[in-house]
Amino acid sequence: MSKLLIVGTVAFDAIETPFGKTDKILGGAATYIGLSASNFDVESAVVSVVGEDFPKEYLDLLEKNNVNIEGLEVVKGGKTFFWSGKYHNDLNTRDTLDTQLNVLADFKPVVPDSHKDSEFVMLGNLHPLVQLSVLDQVKNPKLVVLDTMNFWMDNTLEDLMKVIARVDVITINDEEARQLSGEYSLVKAARKIEEMGPKYVVIKKGEHGALLFHKDQVFFAPALPLEEVFDPTGAGDTFAGGFIGYLARTGNISFENMKSAIIYGSNLASFCVEKFGTERMQTLTGDEVNKRLDEFRKLTQFETQLD
Amino acid sequence: MSKLLIVGTVAFDAIETPFGKTDKILGGAATYIGLSASNFDVESAVVSVVGEDFPKEYLDLLEKNNVNIEGLEVVKGGKTFFWSGKYHNDLNTRDTLDTQLNVLADFKPVVPDSHKDSEFVMLGNLHPLVQLSVLDQVKNPKLVVLDTMNFWMDNTLEDLMKVIARVDVITINDEEARQLSGEYSLVKAARKIEEMGPKYVVIKKGEHGALLFHKDQVFFAPALPLEEVFDPTGAGDTFAGGFIGYLARTGNISFENMKSAIIYGSNLASFCVEKFGTERMQTLTGDEVNKRLDEFRKLTQFETQLD
Repeated sequence: MSKLLIVGTVAFDAIETPFGKTDKILGGAATYIGLSASNFDVESAVVSVVGEDFPKEYLDLLEKNNVNIEGLEVVKGGKTFFWSGKYHNDLNTRDTLDTQLNVLADFKPVVPDSHKDSEFVMLGNLHPLVQLSVLDQVKNPKLVVLDTMNFWMDNTLEDLMKVIARVDVITINDEEARQLSGEYSLVKAARKIEEMGPKYVVIKKGEHGALLFHKDQVFFAPALPLEEVFDPTGAGDTFAGGFIGYLARTGNISFENMKSAIIYGSNLASFCVEKFGTERMQTLTGDEVNKRLDEFRKLTQFETQLD
Repeated sequence: MSKLLIVGTVAFDAIETPFGKTDKILGGAATYIGLSASNFDVESAVVSVVGEDFPKEYLDLLEKNNVNIEGLEVVKGGKTFFWSGKYHNDLNTRDTLDTQLNVLADFKPVVPDSHKDSEFVMLGNLHPLVQLSVLDQVKNPKLVVLDTMNFWMDNTLEDLMKVIARVDVITINDEEARQLSGEYSLVKAARKIEEMGPKYVVIKKGEHGALLFHKDQVFFAPALPLEEVFDPTGAGDTFAGGFIGYLARTGNISFENMKSAIIYGSNLASFCVEKFGTERMQTLTGDEVNKRLDEFRKLTQFETQLD
């Protein structure tokens, strides 16, 4: 069984969408990645930090989903990272209402000995120096995937570029790819980003799907057209967790297999947005994932009569 | 060989993009549809109108591409419909600089006797009353496809709804689908539009591809990721021409076959945008189309290891 190491936030979120609002609920990139990857038979472990206010039931939830929490530091007297946001009516854009770093401000990640030999490493979205520190602690992983966002490009670009230079795959959204590369065309943007380090570039386009680039090869996975998106929070992390979870499960990091990996990522993300927060991911079954995989096939597979 | 009847504008366009500008060149919905459909072995005929200023070389070009022009009225002393537009830097939006209806203002379409029995009818984007008149002149076609736009929703909605009620397939873009249905979710929008008449709804999302809806079935065709889009003019018409051209060529109007038809539509549209106006479509070869079909396969087809 492959080992998958995940670094990222474990947090409280308070979310408002046109369909309702929540109090503080379970959130954070590592949480979504871990829950998503738990749909595959892999040995996941999270490196993160929370405060003493973090409920035991949330820790239990992660463990119940086969996410090892040895590397999840609980800071005595500390408060857990908190994010609050409000989505606009189209659900494609949102305003951040509040961000309280709390224990995340001084976080020094410690990779547990048991997972320093992880073959797969997922650097979830947080400070590039934390991501770098994790990279320094692992031994010769088979595949490192980086997720990041425009905030780090704006504020810590130099550190971010050091991480980018050391990863195999980067996942960012279309606007971020344009910002990072200075190219409007996503084909050109991906090529420039490959020159920065990653051999594979995944560009997420939200409801418009995701593109996978590698040299002159390209693959596209659509998002499943949904009647209603309820809450997009965590969709990108869930996508990343499905992507690396599938790769870790199959142990195959070929471009062909990455095609299926981003289909699985889209598949899992399509569930995530159906309810608030992690709610839907907590009840998700393998049967449901398999059925939806068939929907993705019907959505994209074709045979012409003119061959 | 199936007969394909096309009604739409045949026009002069003057186009400005970030890459350059043209004088008056050949344009119009029926022109693009006809050139696109000419990639399939079908008997196409255009119903349209031009002025005496329309060059013989353009008429010859249509005939050379197996588009019958018996139904293309040339108005003595009249001037051809003229459209001029300027694209913004992202090429997704444009300003109309000039529209001169000219001979189009009083156009009364006459379907030639030789094509009243056309099995396939493409109602290209123009006034709904012209589209209705063509529908009244054809005998029991096998499939009618309608292309329209927000201009007719804003100005002639009542007439447009009469056309919509009588067609089998409608192709519109995402914003137009939302406007027509009052639904933001494209899944819901498509369902509402099906209730207005069309059994199949094609929603075009430009660089984000196209969706085909029919009852509870859905198919997605991506746009080919291109390094550079040179001029988007006519891409939607070329898409429609490829869609109906493929259906007319195969004679099969099942949902499964429509999947391939929208892949062919996307395929042909991906060529159209590579040069100004109809320039690329004039030199396009079957080999190039087949090669790009392989690119679409590589872009979308996948096999998982977990089945």
